Amino acid sequence: MAKEITPRAENYSQWYLDLVNKAELAENSAVRGCMVIKPYGYAIWEKMQAQLDRMFKETGHVNAYFPLFIPKSFFSREAAHVEGFAKECAVVTHYRLRNDPDGKGVVVDPEAKLEEELIIRPTSETIIWNTYRNWIHSHRDLPILINQWANVVRWEMRTRLFLRTAEFLWQEGHTAHATKEEAIEETLKIVNLYADFAENFMGIPVIKGIKSENERFAGAEDTYCIEGLMQDGKALQCGTSHFLGQNFAKAFDVMFSNRDGMLEHVWATSWGVSTRLMGALVMAHSDDNGLVLPPNLAPIQVVIVPIYKNQEEFNRISARVAEIIPRLKARGITVKFDDNDNRKPGWKFAEYELKGVPVRLAMGPRDLENDTVEVARRDTLTKQSLPAENIDEVVESLLKEIQENIFKKAKAFRDENIRKADTWDEFKTLLEEKGGFISAHWDGTTETEIKIKEETKATIRCIPFDEKSGTGVCIYSGKPSQRRVLFAIAY
Amino acid sequence: MAKEITPRAENYSQWYLDLVNKAELAENSAVRGCMVIKPYGYAIWEKMQAQLDRMFKETGHVNAYFPLFIPKSFFSREAAHVEGFAKECAVVTHYRLRNDPDGKGVVVDPEAKLEEELIIRPTSETIIWNTYRNWIHSHRDLPILINQWANVVRWEMRTRLFLRTAEFLWQEGHTAHATKEEAIEETLKIVNLYADFAENFMGIPVIKGIKSENERFAGAEDTYCIEGLMQDGKALQCGTSHFLGQNFAKAFDVMFSNRDGMLEHVWATSWGVSTRLMGALVMAHSDDNGLVLPPNLAPIQVVIVPIYKNQEEFNRISARVAEIIPRLKARGITVKFDDNDNRKPGWKFAEYELKGVPVRLAMGPRDLENDTVEVARRDTLTKQSLPAENIDEVVESLLKEIQENIFKKAKAFRDENIRKADTWDEFKTLLEEKGGFISAHWDGTTETEIKIKEETKATIRCIPFDEKSGTGVCIYSGKPSQRRVLFAIAY
Repeated sequence: MAKEITPRAENYSQWYLDLVNKAELAENSAVRGCMVIKPYGYAIWEKMQAQLDRMFKETGHVNAYFPLFIPKSFFSREAAHVEGFAKECAVVTHYRLRNDPDGKGVVVDPEAKLEEELIIRPTSETIIWNTYRNWIHSHRDLPILINQWANVVRWEMRTRLFLRTAEFLWQEGHTAHATKEEAIEETLKIVNLYADFAENFMGIPVIKGIKSENERFAGAEDTYCIEGLMQDGKALQCGTSHFLGQNFAKAFDVMFSNRDGMLEHVWATSWGVSTRLMGALVMAHSDDNGLVLPPNLAPIQVVIVPIYKNQEEFNRISARVAEIIPRLKARGITVKFDDNDNRKPGWKFAEYELKGVPVRLAMGPRDLENDTVEVARRDTLTKQSLPAENIDEVVESLLKEIQENIFKKAKAFRDENIRKADTWDEFKTLLEEKGGFISAHWDGTTETEIKIKEETKATIRCIPFDEKSGTGVCIYSGKPSQRRVLFAIAY
Repeated sequence: MAKEITPRAENYSQWYLDLVNKAELAENSAVRGCMVIKPYGYAIWEKMQAQLDRMFKETGHVNAYFPLFIPKSFFSREAAHVEGFAKECAVVTHYRLRNDPDGKGVVVDPEAKLEEELIIRPTSETIIWNTYRNWIHSHRDLPILINQWANVVRWEMRTRLFLRTAEFLWQEGHTAHATKEEAIEETLKIVNLYADFAENFMGIPVIKGIKSENERFAGAEDTYCIEGLMQDGKALQCGTSHFLGQNFAKAFDVMFSNRDGMLEHVWATSWGVSTRLMGALVMAHSDDNGLVLPPNLAPIQVVIVPIYKNQEEFNRISARVAEIIPRLKARGITVKFDDNDNRKPGWKFAEYELKGVPVRLAMGPRDLENDTVEVARRDTLTKQSLPAENIDEVVESLLKEIQENIFKKAKAFRDENIRKADTWDEFKTLLEEKGGFISAHWDGTTETEIKIKEETKATIRCIPFDEKSGTGVCIYSGKPSQRRVLFAIAY
């Protein structure tokens, strides 16, 4: 067993934290609620960023950067937004320290008090729409399709690495449009883009849907989302895309003259995914041996471990490996040859399993004789001996297969864990005994939604786009329901 | 003249601000001293980032991410560091707002006061070395070669877009080593890497050297730097690399057991470049028509403008352009076809000159007849008619030529503007009448350095690595001098 990871069956939550720590993804910092993202974890995040950035640019978006600080008064402009965001936040009140008169370190200089406090951005709608006011005058200035990669801060009381941290990294798209239709189209385009990314790069099947009013982003008219299911049966919101209507344009007085020369408020969207996806990645695929990474996001896709008894064997193996590596690289495969002499092969095997490297090649003296390589898959933990001759071709198709298999496995699990409940008792029993998503009728009121949450901790994850169940009766209130919605206990 | 840019000769400082604004690189935000980096400016910064990131990785560095916040007490640990950095900084004192009892917006909740204030990082040595304490135990854990891309905040009183802003973007490398020699080697490796980047990507010739004690980074044993010269004769520090000795290891108690099993403090370096380089890029090359971008950093390397009188001509030109574009792209060239019908060719010409697009291709009916293209260079503002047949090949070599020419031109200017002064009068006259770098003898004391600064505003930019002048007499004090150093008035 690799480096003492608590088994999932014993304590899923501890398993997660063990994995994040032992696989060297992240750790807690000296600052409460803030994490250090370690090089291996950051390398995975960089792969996510690079892919998302490509997808944003291919759909016409450009990057920009807006200030970290937001004047306090900006938050009061949009009534719903202030309720949702301005409360738990980091507030800058002073701009200088001075030597402590007692000679002990430094203290805040009371004379350097800001006239207006600055909030560390929890999200940037306010500062961005305040800026857009100067950028948008005519319909010719629209659309604006801007994304920002940034850090944000929300003062969370209970934090967990990647899943909920005071500071986290994310991207936030903020677009401006001339019509409601175009803004809604953008919102949907992005939720589809996110789903594409989650499924085809992260290997995580997601349900696309719309949030209930109660779960909506503070300031949005509608929030679309993608929801994933973790191995413990809890749901995890993986990304959101908001149709903001004209709310922020009205709050910040952003108007444009339309084609008819009439002044109108601008239509807006915003959307984001964050380092939270790192948590989803870990929890969706990994096992008791460590991480399982989809090849599309693995910093090292293939590791080669030499098995040798003496220097002469090592030299012969290294020479053969030196022929194989360029062939793998030529296929765009990231490969590492671990020739560290201080560690035994067994230690290395466990280490790369822990790190989730999708394919491990091992080569010993007998392989040299037979011109073979031992090929081990991280996802299935199976291995076989294969000819070395065309190993580059074999590994390339194996990586594709692993990528697909990881998704298929997660999808089978997810599909098994969507269950219908038609009565309140059934709902509670399913939730307690099985977890997962529960598809149930709901009367559409926030009141019922909150009561269900209070009694079971389950929330409405979304109303799926493809929900075709038709009308029914609310499991809780017995009132009429328009359609089934998906409930789950969520991270 | 493009969009009313103040000529350099009239007011260099206003020319710079006009250019940054009109070329849409950045603008001031609603938050004092913080800028908005606009999409075109950010696209250039992304190109810088991508290239630097490649260079860091090729030299064995990895990326990671450390918290935005630093506990106040961390700053008091390293005596010199606190003097240099802890004073002008953004201080977070509270973590919550609440509704104003008067009903007017939100106010800071006095009950949500932090026990210990948090400082927004002005630089991350303290939080990183506090983390390294847990990562480093043995010589086997070394070296650590980490870089971070991040935002930092220094509360500047007088700000100027890119050159000096309260919040800016940068990269900060923080490495840990087992020996002094290895740390110094790393410091030098990075200053050479920065010089390579500045010269071969930004086209800015730089002087590599070492800072005087007075100009050293707060907490460093030695600071190496690259210094560029702007068109107005002022110097601009483009990057610094610090040998930190064991200062931070001692302050944060970071020890390792060496090969002999003895405990030692770890040796450190740190190094960084920032969005300040955007300012250097503008000021080193641009002219009264707008930006001049080196092709290696231009978001659009080639723009194609159609010249037509009617739809039929436009269609024929577009068809020809559609053949050329894939050939340019196949050579890795970024190309834009501006087929916007709302703008005249003259407007487009001025616009792309303003944006610094290195090569402009124009095609009209006569070009179609003759199978030619009009090729205009942004750096020399010259144009010529060339056969369309092999235009992709011609443009590729032209881009290389432009890249080199921009550097050569800047280098010729820089070399002309390094002058020797052997007396105090000569020094003052040169500084006043010519500006530029002045190579002069200095007695090596901070006292003299400060007096020279007070009297002339000139500072010691660096002691160049290749300075071979030998001993002499200080221009100010008349005392013995070991070597000449470079003075300049700097940004």
